[in-house]
Amino acid sequence: MSTTTRVETDSFGPIDVPSDAYWGAQTQRSIQNFPFGPREQMPLEIAHALGFVKQAAARVNARSRGLDAEIAEAIQQAAGEVAAGLHDDQFPLVIWQTGSGTQSNMNANEVIAGRANEILTGQRGGKSPVHPNDHVNKGQSSNDSFPTAMHVAAARTIHKRLLPALKKMHERLAAQAAAWDHIFKIGRTHLQDATPLTLGQEFSGYAAQISDGIERVNGVLPRLHRLAQGGTAVGTGLNAPAGFAEDFAIEIARLTQLPFTSAPNKFEALASHDTLVEASGILNVLAVSLSKIANDIRLLGSGPRCGLGELKLPENEPGSSIMPGKVNPTQAEMLTMVAAQVMGNHVAVTVGGLQGHMELNVFKPLIGANVLRSIDLLSTGMESFTERTLDGLEPDEKRISELLNRSLMLVTALAPEIGYDNAAKIAKHAHTHGLTLKEAGLALGLVDEQTFDRVVKPETMVGR
Amino acid sequence: MSTTTRVETDSFGPIDVPSDAYWGAQTQRSIQNFPFGPREQMPLEIAHALGFVKQAAARVNARSRGLDAEIAEAIQQAAGEVAAGLHDDQFPLVIWQTGSGTQSNMNANEVIAGRANEILTGQRGGKSPVHPNDHVNKGQSSNDSFPTAMHVAAARTIHKRLLPALKKMHERLAAQAAAWDHIFKIGRTHLQDATPLTLGQEFSGYAAQISDGIERVNGVLPRLHRLAQGGTAVGTGLNAPAGFAEDFAIEIARLTQLPFTSAPNKFEALASHDTLVEASGILNVLAVSLSKIANDIRLLGSGPRCGLGELKLPENEPGSSIMPGKVNPTQAEMLTMVAAQVMGNHVAVTVGGLQGHMELNVFKPLIGANVLRSIDLLSTGMESFTERTLDGLEPDEKRISELLNRSLMLVTALAPEIGYDNAAKIAKHAHTHGLTLKEAGLALGLVDEQTFDRVVKPETMVGR
Amino acid sequence: MSTTTRVETDSFGPIDVPSDAYWGAQTQRSIQNFPFGPREQMPLEIAHALGFVKQAAARVNARSRGLDAEIAEAIQQAAGEVAAGLHDDQFPLVIWQTGSGTQSNMNANEVIAGRANEILTGQRGGKSPVHPNDHVNKGQSSNDSFPTAMHVAAARTIHKRLLPALKKMHERLAAQAAAWDHIFKIGRTHLQDATPLTLGQEFSGYAAQISDGIERVNGVLPRLHRLAQGGTAVGTGLNAPAGFAEDFAIEIARLTQLPFTSAPNKFEALASHDTLVEASGILNVLAVSLSKIANDIRLLGSGPRCGLGELKLPENEPGSSIMPGKVNPTQAEMLTMVAAQVMGNHVAVTVGGLQGHMELNVFKPLIGANVLRSIDLLSTGMESFTERTLDGLEPDEKRISELLNRSLMLVTALAPEIGYDNAAKIAKHAHTHGLTLKEAGLALGLVDEQTFDRVVKPETMVGR
Amino acid sequence: MSTTTRVETDSFGPIDVPSDAYWGAQTQRSIQNFPFGPREQMPLEIAHALGFVKQAAARVNARSRGLDAEIAEAIQQAAGEVAAGLHDDQFPLVIWQTGSGTQSNMNANEVIAGRANEILTGQRGGKSPVHPNDHVNKGQSSNDSFPTAMHVAAARTIHKRLLPALKKMHERLAAQAAAWDHIFKIGRTHLQDATPLTLGQEFSGYAAQISDGIERVNGVLPRLHRLAQGGTAVGTGLNAPAGFAEDFAIEIARLTQLPFTSAPNKFEALASHDTLVEASGILNVLAVSLSKIANDIRLLGSGPRCGLGELKLPENEPGSSIMPGKVNPTQAEMLTMVAAQVMGNHVAVTVGGLQGHMELNVFKPLIGANVLRSIDLLSTGMESFTERTLDGLEPDEKRISELLNRSLMLVTALAPEIGYDNAAKIAKHAHTHGLTLKEAGLALGLVDEQTFDRVVKPETMVGR
Repeated sequence: MSTTTRVETDSFGPIDVPSDAYWGAQTQRSIQNFPFGPREQMPLEIAHALGFVKQAAARVNARSRGLDAEIAEAIQQAAGEVAAGLHDDQFPLVIWQTGSGTQSNMNANEVIAGRANEILTGQRGGKSPVHPNDHVNKGQSSNDSFPTAMHVAAARTIHKRLLPALKKMHERLAAQAAAWDHIFKIGRTHLQDATPLTLGQEFSGYAAQISDGIERVNGVLPRLHRLAQGGTAVGTGLNAPAGFAEDFAIEIARLTQLPFTSAPNKFEALASHDTLVEASGILNVLAVSLSKIANDIRLLGSGPRCGLGELKLPENEPGSSIMPGKVNPTQAEMLTMVAAQVMGNHVAVTVGGLQGHMELNVFKPLIGANVLRSIDLLSTGMESFTERTLDGLEPDEKRISELLNRSLMLVTALAPEIGYDNAAKIAKHAHTHGLTLKEAGLALGLVDEQTFDRVVKPETMVGR
Repeated sequence: MSTTTRVETDSFGPIDVPSDAYWGAQTQRSIQNFPFGPREQMPLEIAHALGFVKQAAARVNARSRGLDAEIAEAIQQAAGEVAAGLHDDQFPLVIWQTGSGTQSNMNANEVIAGRANEILTGQRGGKSPVHPNDHVNKGQSSNDSFPTAMHVAAARTIHKRLLPALKKMHERLAAQAAAWDHIFKIGRTHLQDATPLTLGQEFSGYAAQISDGIERVNGVLPRLHRLAQGGTAVGTGLNAPAGFAEDFAIEIARLTQLPFTSAPNKFEALASHDTLVEASGILNVLAVSLSKIANDIRLLGSGPRCGLGELKLPENEPGSSIMPGKVNPTQAEMLTMVAAQVMGNHVAVTVGGLQGHMELNVFKPLIGANVLRSIDLLSTGMESFTERTLDGLEPDEKRISELLNRSLMLVTALAPEIGYDNAAKIAKHAHTHGLTLKEAGLALGLVDEQTFDRVVKPETMVGR
Repeated sequence: MSTTTRVETDSFGPIDVPSDAYWGAQTQRSIQNFPFGPREQMPLEIAHALGFVKQAAARVNARSRGLDAEIAEAIQQAAGEVAAGLHDDQFPLVIWQTGSGTQSNMNANEVIAGRANEILTGQRGGKSPVHPNDHVNKGQSSNDSFPTAMHVAAARTIHKRLLPALKKMHERLAAQAAAWDHIFKIGRTHLQDATPLTLGQEFSGYAAQISDGIERVNGVLPRLHRLAQGGTAVGTGLNAPAGFAEDFAIEIARLTQLPFTSAPNKFEALASHDTLVEASGILNVLAVSLSKIANDIRLLGSGPRCGLGELKLPENEPGSSIMPGKVNPTQAEMLTMVAAQVMGNHVAVTVGGLQGHMELNVFKPLIGANVLRSIDLLSTGMESFTERTLDGLEPDEKRISELLNRSLMLVTALAPEIGYDNAAKIAKHAHTHGLTLKEAGLALGLVDEQTFDRVVKPETMVGR
Repeated sequence: MSTTTRVETDSFGPIDVPSDAYWGAQTQRSIQNFPFGPREQMPLEIAHALGFVKQAAARVNARSRGLDAEIAEAIQQAAGEVAAGLHDDQFPLVIWQTGSGTQSNMNANEVIAGRANEILTGQRGGKSPVHPNDHVNKGQSSNDSFPTAMHVAAARTIHKRLLPALKKMHERLAAQAAAWDHIFKIGRTHLQDATPLTLGQEFSGYAAQISDGIERVNGVLPRLHRLAQGGTAVGTGLNAPAGFAEDFAIEIARLTQLPFTSAPNKFEALASHDTLVEASGILNVLAVSLSKIANDIRLLGSGPRCGLGELKLPENEPGSSIMPGKVNPTQAEMLTMVAAQVMGNHVAVTVGGLQGHMELNVFKPLIGANVLRSIDLLSTGMESFTERTLDGLEPDEKRISELLNRSLMLVTALAPEIGYDNAAKIAKHAHTHGLTLKEAGLALGLVDEQTFDRVVKPETMVGR
């Protein structure tokens, strides 16, 4: 930003603002009052969503409330630019500000007014002819605009990033479940050898986790599409005209192409953020699913010579600064770390969600920032993992087959023939004496060779 | 239990069991291997659910697989007794056992076999004619039976306890929202005086939180109704006959009168518990909602003389061992403590959910016990709070009206008339000089009396 | 309890109490107002600690304040019985009550008065000659007595159970670190083969985690030994004589043989429970350490034929209801589940700790119950794991040696001789072509045989 | 960065790097393999700490291992520049990379080599004469360097930022405790009126929380000062000369002026991060303390006309975009949101800490980034809150006195004179009939005027 300044004012008096900034006094005051570093910036998705909010509000105001046509038009243009990301450098505020997000709402109001004034007069900034509160914020309060922006931002990133990443990962896993359905392998429960299954079946479980994840995300969307706008300061809609809430929802749905609706109870929509806590809980389930999948894949890919070695993972980079030639499951590590962060973010959201007082929950920026960060982390994490690990995954069929043939748990197939207790004796005898199951069964006289060969076949033990 | 013993055996050899116990060797071994105290007992809802599981399995086995009719009949009777809670004292095992819940599944198998043998022979316990593994557990594994029991237990307690408690609380809040809609009061945002609303509107927000909670619980039920049964050891269904999973789901749905179905992917159903993590996340949202409501109510009821004092809370017991006559919001304290526990339980469930290895998640008892405890705590907590706090709540209309009339934030109604900046000047002037808004407005010459009286009316500021 | 009743009274009026109960009206009212089941009982450690509190207070009151000698004597005797666990069945109240623990404090006051009256008059219960508030609670409030009991109970169980369990586990691990220091094995980082170490070194890391754990527990004890007693209702000590706090600390230290002191600031001691949140954080670290250790041991013990198989775990019970002969790492599963619960409890404690209002944190029972449960779970869990898994652990030296000799990461020792990049080429060549390192090195001409044999020796690569 | 490129190579082959970058092939590969946005950058404190690590290592290597003197000198200079923050733009990698932090360690190695080469040859980048692995990383592995950097970074920010912020806040609170010790006010427990205390006493409780916090932070520092360096790949110290660990600790202690020591067990120091989990737990306690303090202050400052109104909070900015003249406790909101984030970060750290496998915990970047972010948030949060809220805080003595005189809980002082039950009757009578305590006491004949006036004096009820 420029080092020369101009003077802007608010109800606290005059304050110097960089002369090339579109923002005004309240944004400037927030910069000075909350001196956190740039890595704590409010997510830009919120700024873009506020752009849509102001654009939609201006449309409603223009049509129904006599907001001067020229002013309304300039606001719409300026707000549209914000929504499109053309003024990202004008949103310097951090997450850690007032708990209502008022300062980010005012940042949007000021930038849009500042830009609209520039459009109309050639002069950047100021409050005339377009006033940040009286015109851009018309019929609105931070208390409804900011939570509206939180829902709009979350819904947009879910639609644009999370769901596509989930679908791509699901497709890949489902394809592998199909492709590898002929590969019989040892199952493992309690990390101990168990009865066999196919590698395809194992991957079908992962695919099912992700498709359930998609189902869960879709389940929360209807509530996320409900917007607080129209409640103004405390939910009553004071200073917003009748019908504003509903008209606004129609406009913003048009602008974003998403099925937003007006929240049925505005008091709830300002005073609590249960739906964002719920959404965070769904992201937490995704994190749990991804931990499981990534953990399994690195475990199956452990080795190359002293681990399980059933899968060969693609090599993306050198693995060690000291051990030459080492290759590590780095994408799985990235994904499990991302998952841990999402679980932590979920607790932060929960702690924020539980503490609202009376008419307003004042942990809004915390809640919004964490939900958006979790969506971003999971989306990028899944895309990268799918592309850089799943896509290059190869079964080591020789190793898989070797392990399967060693296992003692094929004895399970004998239990219905000779009883659980006798089958257990065979397994224990084989284990203790280092025998194959067949050798042990014959040695103990508990099964004859013909029966054994008929019954103990991995390929008949996987549920076809 | 009796101090005399009988001998039971398993694949590890003989072991002494109390002579009046129905259980056998494996249960006894677990008692000795996991020496936690009685407060760590596996929830009885799991034992009851295992009763239903074994009863349904015996029906399917009897019909389709040639399980001897007399044995099947005895198992069904014994299992029905377990499901009905007639043998609760036969389930001594603790949560902290093997992570598959195998020991609790064997506890159920042994008790049902031991009771079935008593029915058939007059002799309690043993493995003949009814064998715990070969007959009671026929076509099953702990790995599918125990997660089935977890889903059955969770679904049953949600239907029987949680949803009724939610509905009762919602009814009460909705009734108060209607009854108190004529009471105008000061709104509060950031804990600071804001524009007015009605007490009914405030309570309508709480009611909306609870009705959304009901919607959320109903959203997870379809996935909770999906059962792992039929997957047996690793998901392939080894040793279970074709169609067992589907037939089982039909039978247990009949027995419990709940719409259970067979899980579409059994590998997922054994290896992960994402749906229980999801359900726990929904309970976490309820905990957040209840924290908010209970906190507001105790804040509005703070006093009696030095707090907000807008609500009078029912007096249930003496409040202090040292301060005579003190009465405290104890039900709100109970409910917010319960909520904190549910949030903690949710993290325990998440940590358990993320750690499954390969074909089996081995944090099952932890996950099941926490979800069931959370359901129980929330259900009892809401019932008690509704009955002992909400039902006796009374607004102090005199106090409410007194506070409303003092407020400065009624100035907001003037902003559309005289502009935000002028309205702010009036409020600040009134605040600094201890004046009423009207006095300040007239003194500053920013509004005339007639306009003021026309515009600044609380009853027109609540969105009607 | 008896079904016949007697009448007791409090400031709310008369109420029926079972005739054989020692408790009075306020306990009875709490039973009826908080209808949770028996598994939600307030931990008995709290009741015992309250016994010590009342006994110590009676001694101070007798000496310094003219509490009638006979009454003081009877209170001391009755309180001593409570402390010794002789009246455990007289403490029926649940965790979920008033957030100050007032009802449990009154339960102790009433039972001790009721028993003291029986001692003095032969008649159980009542308020005369010994009154629960005026005599047993003399100079005290629930607001200082209950947090004092929380600290006393936590400190006692840490001293009696947690530290001994930690020391026993540490001794065992340290012994194994020494005993197995000659066993060279492959190291694993990122679950991938790495440079070698000894099994003893691996276990020395576990031992260090536990000894650091002991250091951490000892670090929090000085703060845990600080007692709130003497602050009475809000921290000012109203109605307690001068010197009461200090005299009390001396007496209870004598009774418990633990170095309790009087908290330097009583306002903090009532209004916050930061030290219990801190203690819970230390238990959380222990849970993290135990998860790591138990996870490693089950991973090293995975198999028997298709896993890593470096350790043989003791067999404690049959592992599967369907797979005959299966043995599972059940103690490790118990311990990792316990750890997950402790992590959840820690979040519950944190949520309770953050919410205190003004002069009193009213999440006391939640905080106390979770800290005590975590101590109990970790203590029993470690004892059982040490005895039933560590004590029987055996290395499979043949398998360990076989894996070590296969590894490619011994190439690291060559890097200082031939450079990182050349060493990497050898490892990659060996990996791709299924060669030994030596074969690959010679084939590529990057090392001669003599150098290879001199440098690549596992026994020189473990830091001696 | 420049759009022209040069070619760098690693064991995976050649790759294009921006021509003005100091970094090399491995950094570039990580940029491309982990496409997260700039807000996910690895904290720069880690880069600075790695600068110190490389500088200290070069000193040890120069002295004891024959690292060429000129090379060692160039490395020291380059590393010193990194430590001083002169190359911050050369550290583009994100948190979400390999779990060992290898890529950030290589980033440091490459930048330092690239800069050292520039110093020696005038040509930026490359591996000659200074090689990132063979020279800069000499005697080190990422597995020991990265956790060393985590401890160094955490300890440095604690010393430089957290402790000073804590001390400043403590000083301010302690000063207020002294200054306001003459202001008698109503106490509140359960949010209900209780016995009196002074405003100074109330603030002394907050001061005690912060001074205990300082004690807690100091308690963890000795363990945080222990460094992993010298363990190299798996803890054995392979490829590091004897004494390297100890010499390194001496050098880095000199460079940073902090009392770093060599970790007594390097296996523990690589494979677990218990001490960072512990440190995070201490930050969690601070978050709890700050939540309590900030919550109390905004509650006491609620109003201006319809709240408690005991404190006047400084006005820092306009509070509402719709309600003119509104001022909000925004710094308290910032601080409680920051606290919620720290609690969430703590869970992320815990989840990362519990999951280490064998010789290496691979959640290092997650753990490091969260601990550093929590330290940063708390430090800035406390500084800002102290400066912008505490410093301007003013008691409203008129309001405080008015509330005190209204209270019923002064009756507590009568209990030792007339008994708890009689005192309760007076309070209830006054409450029900809207009387003063004195009026009620005389009306009921339970106390005479002289006794009342002698006993019921707030100024004698606060423990002097």
